[in-house]
Parts: sequence; C-alpha cells; structure tokens
Amino acid sequence: MNMTVDLNADMGESFGPWNMGDDASLLDIVTSANIACGFHAGDPDVMARTMSRARDNGVGIGAHPGFLDLQGFGRRKMHVPHDTLRNMIRYQLGAAKGMATAVGTQVRHLKLHGAMSNMACVDHAMARACYEAALDVDPDIIIMVLAATAMEEVVRDLRCNWCGEIFADRAYNDDATLVDRSLPGAVIHDPEAAGPRILEMVREGAIITESGKRIPTAIDTICLHGDTAEAVELAKSVRSSLESGGVTVQKFQGRKS
Amino acid sequence: MNMTVDLNADMGESFGPWNMGDDASLLDIVTSANIACGFHAGDPDVMARTMSRARDNGVGIGAHPGFLDLQGFGRRKMHVPHDTLRNMIRYQLGAAKGMATAVGTQVRHLKLHGAMSNMACVDHAMARACYEAALDVDPDIIIMVLAATAMEEVVRDLRCNWCGEIFADRAYNDDATLVDRSLPGAVIHDPEAAGPRILEMVREGAIITESGKRIPTAIDTICLHGDTAEAVELAKSVRSSLESGGVTVQKFQGRKS
Amino acid sequence: MNMTVDLNADMGESFGPWNMGDDASLLDIVTSANIACGFHAGDPDVMARTMSRARDNGVGIGAHPGFLDLQGFGRRKMHVPHDTLRNMIRYQLGAAKGMATAVGTQVRHLKLHGAMSNMACVDHAMARACYEAALDVDPDIIIMVLAATAMEEVVRDLRCNWCGEIFADRAYNDDATLVDRSLPGAVIHDPEAAGPRILEMVREGAIITESGKRIPTAIDTICLHGDTAEAVELAKSVRSSLESGGVTVQKFQGRKS
Amino acid sequence: MNMTVDLNADMGESFGPWNMGDDASLLDIVTSANIACGFHAGDPDVMARTMSRARDNGVGIGAHPGFLDLQGFGRRKMHVPHDTLRNMIRYQLGAAKGMATAVGTQVRHLKLHGAMSNMACVDHAMARACYEAALDVDPDIIIMVLAATAMEEVVRDLRCNWCGEIFADRAYNDDATLVDRSLPGAVIHDPEAAGPRILEMVREGAIITESGKRIPTAIDTICLHGDTAEAVELAKSVRSSLESGGVTVQKFQGRKS
Repeated sequence: MNMTVDLNADMGESFGPWNMGDDASLLDIVTSANIACGFHAGDPDVMARTMSRARDNGVGIGAHPGFLDLQGFGRRKMHVPHDTLRNMIRYQLGAAKGMATAVGTQVRHLKLHGAMSNMACVDHAMARACYEAALDVDPDIIIMVLAATAMEEVVRDLRCNWCGEIFADRAYNDDATLVDRSLPGAVIHDPEAAGPRILEMVREGAIITESGKRIPTAIDTICLHGDTAEAVELAKSVRSSLESGGVTVQKFQGRKS
Repeated sequence: MNMTVDLNADMGESFGPWNMGDDASLLDIVTSANIACGFHAGDPDVMARTMSRARDNGVGIGAHPGFLDLQGFGRRKMHVPHDTLRNMIRYQLGAAKGMATAVGTQVRHLKLHGAMSNMACVDHAMARACYEAALDVDPDIIIMVLAATAMEEVVRDLRCNWCGEIFADRAYNDDATLVDRSLPGAVIHDPEAAGPRILEMVREGAIITESGKRIPTAIDTICLHGDTAEAVELAKSVRSSLESGGVTVQKFQGRKS
Repeated sequence: MNMTVDLNADMGESFGPWNMGDDASLLDIVTSANIACGFHAGDPDVMARTMSRARDNGVGIGAHPGFLDLQGFGRRKMHVPHDTLRNMIRYQLGAAKGMATAVGTQVRHLKLHGAMSNMACVDHAMARACYEAALDVDPDIIIMVLAATAMEEVVRDLRCNWCGEIFADRAYNDDATLVDRSLPGAVIHDPEAAGPRILEMVREGAIITESGKRIPTAIDTICLHGDTAEAVELAKSVRSSLESGGVTVQKFQGRKS
Repeated sequence: MNMTVDLNADMGESFGPWNMGDDASLLDIVTSANIACGFHAGDPDVMARTMSRARDNGVGIGAHPGFLDLQGFGRRKMHVPHDTLRNMIRYQLGAAKGMATAVGTQVRHLKLHGAMSNMACVDHAMARACYEAALDVDPDIIIMVLAATAMEEVVRDLRCNWCGEIFADRAYNDDATLVDRSLPGAVIHDPEAAGPRILEMVREGAIITESGKRIPTAIDTICLHGDTAEAVELAKSVRSSLESGGVTVQKFQGRKS
C-alpha cells in the first residue's frame, strides 16, 4: 500500500501594514497553500510575496477567493446574485493567475473562503456558479471541496479536476457537517489528539464523526491552520503522525470522478 | 499608399449602480477599447459586460489599470513604491485576462489610466516598472504609449510590442506635451475641426502642434472620448474624416522598434 | 381641519465621478432629504454639496446609513453582528452630523437604507440595535420608520422621536408589507394615479392596500424617488395633488408615542 | 516651578481581523490617544473599543484623520484638492465625535496622520485647509501640531486652541525638521538615552538638535510609539525619566497664542 495525502492551509492573509498568520512556519509543513486574492484579505504585494515563498518551498498554489468584505474578513454572509458571484470568482482567479505568472509559478487549485464557502457547502446552485466560473478561466484547475458536502456533488457532476478536504482540528457530526463552534469539543486544540485522529481517517478513507461513525469519502488533503502558535504545533503534529504512520505527505493530484 | 490607423477609447468605467460614458455608441466607432480593471473604475460585472460587447463588435480589448482610488477616479497622483506599482499592474492585468478568458476573448493591449499615466509620461523609471510588470504577466501584450513621451522611449528600450497614441481632442505644445487644460484652446470641442486636423496628422505621420510645428512620431491609434454627447459627435467626425481621406480604420498591430 | 404631511427622498447618492439621481429637481419638491453617508453611496464631497443645497432650499436633512457595500449600493443583504451594526450606524450618523455642522446646518432625522432597511423592517432586534445606536449619538434625532412594520413597534417602545413613512409608488399587501416588485402592479408608474391615491391615504390616515383594505397608521411622510425623469414627474404630481386637496406639505415634526 | 507635559500615541490602528500595536500597554503610559478614523486604519468597531478603553483609563481622545488609503496605511502621498481635503477631515472628525458620544466620552483634540501630516508640515495652505475644516466641525477642538513647523504657524494665525508636539524617538535637524529615516541615528532605539534627552528638552522648553542647537518652542506633548515591544519600553522609560525629573505627566490644555 502507498498512501499519500496533501496538507493545505490558508495563507497570504496579511493586508497592507497588517500581518496575519505564521506563513513562514506553515510553508515548512504544508504541501498546498490557499492564497487570499485581495477581496477579503491579501493585496497585490502580499500575494506576490506569498506566492514567491510558496514557489521556493515547492508548495502548490491555490486561489482562495472570498466576498468583497475586508472588515469582515469575508466571514459575513452576503447575498449576491449568481452572475455577480461568477464574475467575482473570475476576477480573483484571474488576478491570482496574473500574479503567479509574474513570479514564475502557477495557480493549480481553487478553494472558496469563509462565508462564501460556508454558503456553497449547502447550496448546490451557488457552488456550481462558483466552480463553473473558475473553470471558465482555467478548465484544468483543481477545485478543492469540503468532502461529502454539496460541493463534492457539484464537482462530480461537472466532471472537473477536484480534491476532497477534511479538517484537522474540527469535530464532525454524523451527517458529515462540522460540529458547531459554539459546542464543546467542536474545535480540537490538543496536538497529541489531532495527529492520530487524522491518521486514522486517512487510513480508513473515511470521516470519523464524534459518535464514531465512519463516512467513507475522498480524503485528498487535510486543512491546517497557522493563526496561533498552538495551531502551528497542531499542524506539525498532524504531519508527523501521518509520516510516522507511513503516509506520504505530498501535493494532491486532482481526481476526475 | 495604404494608410491605416486604430481608434481607441476608455470604456467600462461604470461602477456598481453608477453608469459612465456611452460605451454602446463608442463601440460602433472605435477599434480598440481600454477597459477599467476595478481599481479606479469598473467592477467584475462591468468588466464582463464591456468585454462581451467589445468581443461582439470585433473591438480589440485592452487592460486599463489605474491607482486604487475609486473616489478620485484614479486621477489623483499617489506616490507608490515601484514594487507596489508593479504588483498593482500585474494584479489588474491578471484580473482582466481572467475576465476576458471567461467571456471567450483575450486582452491584447495595456494602457495606463489617469494620474498613473500622467506620472509615467514624464518618469522613465515609473513607466519601465509598469510596463515590465505587464510583460511579466504577458510577454506578447501590446503596450499603448503616448507618442513622443518617456513612455515611448521605455517601450523602444524594452523592445516589446507597442503602439503610439495621439489625442483627437487635445492641443499639443512644441515639446509634444499636451497644452494645459486650463489654457484656452487646450481642448478641442468642434467636430468640424477635429476630423481634418487628425487626418492631417495621420497623413504626415507627425503631431502638429499649436504653433504649426511638425513632430514626426508613431501614430498607430487615436484616443477618443465618449463621456458627453458632444464627445461622441467628435469621435464620429474623426472616424468619418479619416475614412473619407482614404485612411483605413482598423485595429493596430503592435510594432517592435 | 389642518392636515400636513412631509415629502422625503433619498439624495446624495452620487459617488466620486459618478452621478446618480436628479437631486436639484427633487429639492424643489420634497421637504426632507435622506442623505447617503459614504458606506453604500455618497462621499464627503457629495455629502457637503448635497447638505448645502438642502440647507439653501430649507429642506430637512436626514442621515441615510447603509451597509458598507458600494458595488452593491447597500442593496445586498449582509449578516453583521449587532454590535458591529451599532457601530456602523454611529459612525455614519456622526460623519453626517460633522458634515452638517461644517456647512452650517444639522441632521434632524435618520432613515435606514436598502438591505439594512429591508432586514430591519421584519427584525425587531435588528431595528432596535440600529435605532439605539442612533440615539446614542443624538437622543433627539427623529427616526423615520416604514409605517406599520417592526420598525414602528420598536420606536414606539423606545419612546423616541419618530415619524411614519409610506411609499408614493408602491402597492401594499393586506398585512402592510409592500407587494413584491416582481408582481404586476407592484410599482406605480402613472403620475395621474399616484397623486390621488396618496391624497386619499393621507386624508384617511391609513394605508390603502391593493384589495382596498384600510390599515390606519401614522402617515407623517411620503417617500418619493428621483432616479428617472418619470419618477420626478410622479413626485411632482403627488405634491400637487396633496396641495390641491388642501394638505399642507411641510417638514414633519417627530412624534413621541 | 511646576512643569507638566502630555504624552501621546497613535492608537486604534487595528482593522477588521487585523491587530496592530499594543494599545493596552500604551494606555497605561500616555495621557492622550490619537485614534484612527477609518480611512487609513481603524473601523467603527475598533474606534468604539479604543475610545472605551481610553475613557476608562482617563486618557484624552483625539481624532487622527488620514488619507483614504488602507493598503498604504495613509503613508503614501496623495494629491487631493483642498476642498476634498476639507471634507475628508470633516467626515472623519464627525465620525469620531459620533463614536465618542455613543460611548460616553468626547473628542478633545485632532492630529493629522502619516502622509497628510508630512505634507501639511511644510505646506501652510494645506495645513490651514485641514485645520479650518476641523474647526468648522468643532471650534473648540485642540489642534496638535508638530512644534516649530508650518503647522504651528497656521494654528497661531488661526488663533485656535492648539498644542505643540515633539518626538521621543526621532533626531532633529537644525531647522527643526526630523532627520531623514534613512540616515544613521535618525531613530532613537535606546530607552536609556531617550528618557534623559526628552527630559532635557522639556526642561529647556526647546528642541535639542543633533548638533546640540536649542530651538525654543512649545513642548506640550511628546509623541510615543507602541508598535514594537522595544517601542513600549522606550515609552515607559520616557515617562519614568520625566516623572523622576519632577515633570508632571498630564493631559495638555490647549494654548491660544
């Protein structure tokens, strides 16, 4: 058996004079980076800097578009017509591709950010509008979806390149949704617990829910965070558990079915 | 003899609920459109709409980047480090290319907007930073420059594709700069006068200044405006004078020297 | 009997180089102006200009805050925490008061704009957050509410100064909500019809619904529009019908109960 | 002899999800806070939070308006017509006053930020436009000026309330301008050196330049920084040197001449 998995994290979320996250540390851990495109975070300078670093570290680059809402960091739900949503995705992906070309690299995947992602997770039509828009710009782009959600159904239907993602630090309900952040145990803080848990999911090819239920799904990549020192520790622990467990950590290859 | 010239105009300068200019009329007159990229005007919806119309009319599409200054419409001088300027250009050009691809067309030229253009006209280093940044994203893009300015010297030096532009409605000083708007005669309002004047310049291959001096230069395209009904009349008159005078109006081909 | 009513319209919705609406014509018709505060439309220059004109015409000035969404003109629903909403209202009202003081006048009322208004109409807690925030800045400000909605219940409960508003150009359902814009007859375009209809409502002190039902309510002000030539005609017609019918058109006085 | 001096610092420079500076530590050291107004930094939530903390610590609140340039943090020079500049100041000061009233406190001073300040320092007409605009909104506001610059001349001429400021961590040229940041010794990093140096200036009522020259001036307040741990140490050291040297640290009172 030769198991592989990708590790991804959101990056390039600084803006102007304001820093966010420990991108330097994360770039030593992950194999894919989701880079903000200037609508909810990031600016052209931050994008260029982050893409250059990802390129130097051999980390795959993804566009991470969000709502046009800097103050709310793209986390506030906005009700936007689908045609406008399509153009928002095309614009941000185009900008990311332009920046990537300019620094000698390329954008290989796309992942929705924040409220846009939360909404598209449970809204097939919205997910489809977003993903079609990305494919309009680049028909080969790999769409990163939350495994076992409406997103996955849409990319399977579109027959495009895609990869499925689970979270390293979030507990799951039995319907594959995330346990609400307001509930105890929703967020996993313990690096000792997170690593073995993720290793088990990858080995079984299934989300393991809080109740212990197995939901078989495509686990191509694990989402990590780097916004706190604790998060970076957890990320390191996940990588080390996977490697100790015989899983090769490497960039995902998109799947087509 | 077989003379040809391109006619260009700024377009896609609406934003959200606010309209600007008579793009529909201009698209029947010009052969190239400079489309705002969202920093000083335009938004992803406006860009998609304008590019689709230009595509349908066979009008060549250009990216028209500017300073990030919606309220000032990119007309206020801003002092921005060259590295930031480079990234601003790359981002806007990338976004324009993404939008163009999504609507089944492409960006073939780039022209600087407003204060960014005014500053680069007389600042070789700034012009070079902007143009190199555009070429980083697309080495074949045609750079539209104000004829006989620092811009032209820079593109000749870069040995990239370029084309030279003169204004249909502005008087020129003997050093090829524009007569200051505050002076009488600086702006030409009379359609009857504008057409023959431009025809003469195109035939002679020279800017004709207020004093009557000839400055031989590359006249590949004539800049028209569509912000008022009068401007549209002047634009029509210029096209009709050129055609009556035996000049073929068609999209420019970039030159390399 | 001495009946009076106020006429109000949204104004100052231009932004930077982009014009919107025919404020000059409206200022000859209305007695109160709701002036955009820079988040969804308007900018400091537009605010100063609009307030100066309103002052010169003896038209009452209101702050018209909205969501921070220029591209969407504040018409896109955004889900914002109530504390953030409070601060958004305080900031915009404060800015409006500053501008008014600077041009020698004052802000006497507040009306919510667009999606913020639509949401607050049916959400007591949200309306309360917005109105308390306005009263935090100015305890005497007159809150303009859509008559017979959650908004009216909230201002009655707060025991603040307020006035009730109906629309000149919109049909009403039997529960006092507006007929959905997508339905036939929802928007009244005929100036001949609009005037007499509003006169009847003002005389009866009741909203008259499409079915003919009367909903008694506080009609202190009539909302007019000026975004099209037709809208301005309708506005004139409403004013003239009211005056011919013996109703005095003058600025509202806030009510307290 | 009973010497007093104020200590001020820029605060409230966080924005949305991004933090900046150690406001909590600074609030224990300074007696006046210059609070960003949303154009170059700060947002309504940050303003409310920062003003509430300043109020709780008995620290005087100032509006700190800047250019509308979040990405550039208001540090990029922009060429803005004076009328627009006036309205930018009025808007931001009004917003700050609204926020302050809402949290039960008030704005007592105004200080220009970043490039706006750098430009006004050497441009009498621009300083006058800014200060007149602030006085249009609040004729009693205390204008904080860089001592011995064009700013000071303007406030003396306006006969408004004002106070003069020197920097704790910057070296001075013999003409009272700051030594350029690119030169060695321009920025003072050593807390041991900064305290005694400032104490000497306050005692002598004069700026002491690098060459040792004394420029007598109004030293009402000392500008401190809190963007790094080192800056906070230097700020503490300045306060402690002043107090040990018999200078009372307390909020400035505006002067009129």
